[in-house]
Amino acid sequence: MSSFTAVHRLPAGPVDLSSIDPAGHPAYDGEKADGEQALLDLGPELADLQERLYANKEGGRSVLLVLQGMDTSGKGGVLEHTVGLVSPAGLKITSFKAPTDEEKQHDFLWRIEKALPGPGFIGVFDRSHYEDVLIGRVRQLAPADEIERRYGAINDFEQRLADNGTTIVKCMLHISPEQQKERLLARLDDPAKHWKFNMGDLDERALWPEYQKAYAIALERTNTDAAPWHVIPSDHKWYRNLTIGNLLLDALRGLDLEWPKADFDVDLAKQRLADEEPVR
Amino acid sequence: MSSFTAVHRLPAGPVDLSSIDPAGHPAYDGEKADGEQALLDLGPELADLQERLYANKEGGRSVLLVLQGMDTSGKGGVLEHTVGLVSPAGLKITSFKAPTDEEKQHDFLWRIEKALPGPGFIGVFDRSHYEDVLIGRVRQLAPADEIERRYGAINDFEQRLADNGTTIVKCMLHISPEQQKERLLARLDDPAKHWKFNMGDLDERALWPEYQKAYAIALERTNTDAAPWHVIPSDHKWYRNLTIGNLLLDALRGLDLEWPKADFDVDLAKQRLADEEPVR
Repeated sequence: MSSFTAVHRLPAGPVDLSSIDPAGHPAYDGEKADGEQALLDLGPELADLQERLYANKEGGRSVLLVLQGMDTSGKGGVLEHTVGLVSPAGLKITSFKAPTDEEKQHDFLWRIEKALPGPGFIGVFDRSHYEDVLIGRVRQLAPADEIERRYGAINDFEQRLADNGTTIVKCMLHISPEQQKERLLARLDDPAKHWKFNMGDLDERALWPEYQKAYAIALERTNTDAAPWHVIPSDHKWYRNLTIGNLLLDALRGLDLEWPKADFDVDLAKQRLADEEPVR
Repeated sequence: MSSFTAVHRLPAGPVDLSSIDPAGHPAYDGEKADGEQALLDLGPELADLQERLYANKEGGRSVLLVLQGMDTSGKGGVLEHTVGLVSPAGLKITSFKAPTDEEKQHDFLWRIEKALPGPGFIGVFDRSHYEDVLIGRVRQLAPADEIERRYGAINDFEQRLADNGTTIVKCMLHISPEQQKERLLARLDDPAKHWKFNMGDLDERALWPEYQKAYAIALERTNTDAAPWHVIPSDHKWYRNLTIGNLLLDALRGLDLEWPKADFDVDLAKQRLADEEPVR
């Protein structure tokens, strides 16, 4: 286990997000340029392990990276810079939006189930079923007893995934409200970023304390051995990307993936190629 | 249009694959190291255009890259090295295998329809509906009149996609049988690549001339303005990756994508942020 996992894995018990510095980089003793290079340096091993995972798909293992965080916390940046280090052919990425009318007709986990990575794949959730206990709680989108029910339902669901071979890595991208303000202003100053903004983002921002409380409750209640939470200081984009890269690496290393043994006679195959009639 | 598109877009009429040198690099006057760097140099513009496509998803445009080629021709390499230059969040990649029992119950385009990119996405097919007129024809997996019907069905299908806003880029990865032999032997020599091999690959290879004929027929009959074919010399991996990178770039440039205009009052949003109560 890397120092990143050791430092950022959330311990059991009550969660106090205000005690975690969003601008810290406690597991890496370098600055931005080093950190960006350190992320790139993870690329070859990440790519190798992703290919081993895929090669071993009959073993039924998969990895699921769950990204949650306030608006502008950098979920898209993690997808581009960290997840983008492996071949896209081995990824199943889902960006969850507000549920559609059809999705609302079903249990909140219905659409999640359909987005799970198949054997051999790395799945990534950009937002997730946690929205249903975050905005769901803050905006009272469901009755209180239904919100209450969901924490247990999530734990049962994730336990089942883990029992079926999925390594789950849950990351809360932790930013300060000041950093969010800076990023929102940067979006407003850049016409190439206006499409990412809407006025509703400011209404959500005004509920910052309520969201932090909803996060603390959700993290505490769903921080299981089968699917542990990590709180990632995300005011520094480079540290956020590097940390999640290392968590992904730890998850993949933990699968102990050997290349599958040939299920055919290698020498015979070579002989057939050597002996073949000219092909053309 | 780049020279890559100009050179490799298949002209209308009968197709003679033997007249196209699989080891040529006619649209690029450099060698491997330059070509690899030239591909990386496409990254920033490709990533920018992919983001513009996504930002404009309400415009309904998408891009579909279809990769076809003999075993070892490098479809996976294109995914990793070329397609991997854009954020994986904007991709919908499907690797088509032999159809499942359920898929066989439906028309051959049923599973294809489900794999199409949504608005704003770049879709990539690693193998495709063309298998149904390639291995389908060579192995007589369907009656002759059904194979015959499929060319027209494909053209109608692709025309409909194009009419609905999808730019289709079809690439046949053209390798020599000698190059395939070399790559198969390399797979057999490397235990990390055994999982990619099975004895059936040699049976398919023995049908090389039949496959080349099936390709020539399929390319000729489905080489439409709505969905043109490109034959990519693929004995050199770097040239294959660079060429397809340029074709993708041409497709995206052709969409003339501006950043969407703000649908909110930018100054008002800035003012709200400036005036807000302290958030924490």
